[in-house]
Amino acid sequence: MAVGTELLAPGRVDRNTPLLKERLSDLGVPVRFSAVVPDERSIMEETLRTALGRCRYVLACGGLGPTTDDLTRFAAAGVLGVRLIEDAASLASIESRFRNRGIEMPEVNRRQALIPEGATALPNPLGTAPGVLARTGTGAWLVLLPGPPSELAAMFDAEVRPRLEREGLRAAGSVRETLMVAGLPESVLQERILDLTPSPEEPVQLAILASRGEIEIRVTGPAGRTAAVRRLADRMAERLGSAVFSRTAGEHLEHAVGRMLGWRGERAAIAESLTGGLITERLTRVPGSSAWFDLGVVAYANDAKRDLLAVPEEALLSHGAVSEPVALAMADGARRRSGNTWGVAVTGIAGPGGGSAEKPVGLVWVAVSGPVSRTRRFRLPGDRSLVRELTATAALDLLRQSMLAAGGQGGVRAGVGEAPG
Amino acid sequence: MAVGTELLAPGRVDRNTPLLKERLSDLGVPVRFSAVVPDERSIMEETLRTALGRCRYVLACGGLGPTTDDLTRFAAAGVLGVRLIEDAASLASIESRFRNRGIEMPEVNRRQALIPEGATALPNPLGTAPGVLARTGTGAWLVLLPGPPSELAAMFDAEVRPRLEREGLRAAGSVRETLMVAGLPESVLQERILDLTPSPEEPVQLAILASRGEIEIRVTGPAGRTAAVRRLADRMAERLGSAVFSRTAGEHLEHAVGRMLGWRGERAAIAESLTGGLITERLTRVPGSSAWFDLGVVAYANDAKRDLLAVPEEALLSHGAVSEPVALAMADGARRRSGNTWGVAVTGIAGPGGGSAEKPVGLVWVAVSGPVSRTRRFRLPGDRSLVRELTATAALDLLRQSMLAAGGQGGVRAGVGEAPG
Repeated sequence: MAVGTELLAPGRVDRNTPLLKERLSDLGVPVRFSAVVPDERSIMEETLRTALGRCRYVLACGGLGPTTDDLTRFAAAGVLGVRLIEDAASLASIESRFRNRGIEMPEVNRRQALIPEGATALPNPLGTAPGVLARTGTGAWLVLLPGPPSELAAMFDAEVRPRLEREGLRAAGSVRETLMVAGLPESVLQERILDLTPSPEEPVQLAILASRGEIEIRVTGPAGRTAAVRRLADRMAERLGSAVFSRTAGEHLEHAVGRMLGWRGERAAIAESLTGGLITERLTRVPGSSAWFDLGVVAYANDAKRDLLAVPEEALLSHGAVSEPVALAMADGARRRSGNTWGVAVTGIAGPGGGSAEKPVGLVWVAVSGPVSRTRRFRLPGDRSLVRELTATAALDLLRQSMLAAGGQGGVRAGVGEAPG
Repeated sequence: MAVGTELLAPGRVDRNTPLLKERLSDLGVPVRFSAVVPDERSIMEETLRTALGRCRYVLACGGLGPTTDDLTRFAAAGVLGVRLIEDAASLASIESRFRNRGIEMPEVNRRQALIPEGATALPNPLGTAPGVLARTGTGAWLVLLPGPPSELAAMFDAEVRPRLEREGLRAAGSVRETLMVAGLPESVLQERILDLTPSPEEPVQLAILASRGEIEIRVTGPAGRTAAVRRLADRMAERLGSAVFSRTAGEHLEHAVGRMLGWRGERAAIAESLTGGLITERLTRVPGSSAWFDLGVVAYANDAKRDLLAVPEEALLSHGAVSEPVALAMADGARRRSGNTWGVAVTGIAGPGGGSAEKPVGLVWVAVSGPVSRTRRFRLPGDRSLVRELTATAALDLLRQSMLAAGGQGGVRAGVGEAPG
């Protein structure tokens, strides 16, 4: 529970919840619910009460300051059904902080030493507000942390984490296997692995996250189930075959393509129209990409397609720029111009304008020229930005599939854990 | 209420709540509470029930997909105390979406047409999931929106906003003036406008948001203070002079550069090294960019710089690829090759590898060749991704400054409210 009316204003973000999610995940504690609440005691109490009924650990951040709208400690006492008492050690620490700065403690800061009766005050080496740790009658933890992210992080690491570890939480950590998939619609993927999907009651859980044409499958379970998690991930990988391009979390197609090119000792050149540089931009996000990428051409105009990529005038005139022959000629041109093994090209209509009945917005041709040459036609959904993203993903995947078809190294299994230099 | 177990995982952020906070703020609706909930029907129902008891407008995003863990519509029906019925128009629209892509609708997608009895289905032009708008017995609104941010934004703007405006919400809104600034560090900007900054008690407020080298200044006030808001924005614009590239919210340098090129009837060609296509990718995000952009070359290797951009071998050998002469030769080469008025080039070291004592990571040269030619050297902070972003911004801004120096049309004031075709 992040506390603060200002966090609900436009343009403001709560930086504490992401920080706590990371730290709790390290300890194997999944986050089940998060909320941002205003400086209103009734909403804070309602939210804390619901959370304590639902979860073993409830963390509140912010609202521990000295002013009248800092109400978290009052809400906590209300929920715990106890009164607030002045903690002598906390008061001494607040006073000494002010003394060290050569200022007398303003009277308002005295209330920062108030903590719910029976709770433990957590020292704050970086600020005036102490934290609070309390246990409810049912054994749930209620932890109050200060709002400034640096104070919160330091207090969590110094005071909260060791106490959670004493509860044996480190040992209860979770294990995860990741499959990164491309070239399949999410619904097709779901159907293909439907019978392998664990029920919500099982300890091993599945999450499927789709983003810009790539799908991430996460198989997660408690540390004791490492073998079961691995087994399920392996069975899914078998079902999905070459659609799985990586088993490393956080890898995208550009990493897989770069690694394959690196192994093969080959390079690719890219010719783009509607994506406007997005494909080369994605490839060059990968550190060390100069080893397998050297040239990209963004040929938005027909002149540029003709002059730099040697696309025949005839193909442009008789088929139009958005056509299979032009896509293939662009890929050929990029390959020849660079002297590389592979040329990749895209041409299409990103919208919002430029579409027609015959060639509507979202129509895209992707081509690969090389030891194996391929073309594919797509009708992509979404706005200009999504069409461009999906096209870039489709192009990188067609290059990957073409390299697989050409044989030699480059499978997923061999690549686990290795990255290009 | 943002729905999705995956949003609670570490490293994942909910992009919809910030988006809705902005839009609701435009309508003068303050956000009182926000939550992220897992794909668990009981938690969703509990959260919706609490929210409907507290707020007049409750918006839920996500969980409208076709799979078994998409439960938002079921939770909404539960809270409203009605059953789900199949909406014929929604089903027809989902079926036609699949038909247009040449795929038969998978049976699972049929459930996306289910909406709570008595509610209104909101069409989704960008995806399969229709939205839902329902009113509770007490007059509160419950709105279900799809999870992909582009779908959510489009549906809010087309379907939800007009209905809220019909409730008279526009009148209670606030007014905002925006200044978009480039080419100044944030600290310099802050100092320059320090004495104009309103105190926290004043009704007119200032927000300064910096991102990838661009700074957005927002002056906001209640609707009754339109003149004061305008006056303060005008005074700031005067102070900041040509560093202000737009006064339209949501515009970036690529929009300003595109508009100026459009007015001048000129085109620019781009030659990139370390940015790997990011500059052309940003320019071609602008719909209609083919009117003023035709050619980009990503010349990662020296061979490509020589062959496609006619960079003299001598310059590469004696000064190295990251140098002022090579940057200028690349810009010249792009201009000549395309026959355009302007050529823009960048060369530098994005890291993490490739740096040296003499040429460290973050060293970047930017060049513009045209009626006015300029070069600039930067030592940029940050990781590979930030160095690339800041370089792209610096290149677009140098082109803008060069066009301003070349005279003719293209000032900010004339551009307010106009956009390239």
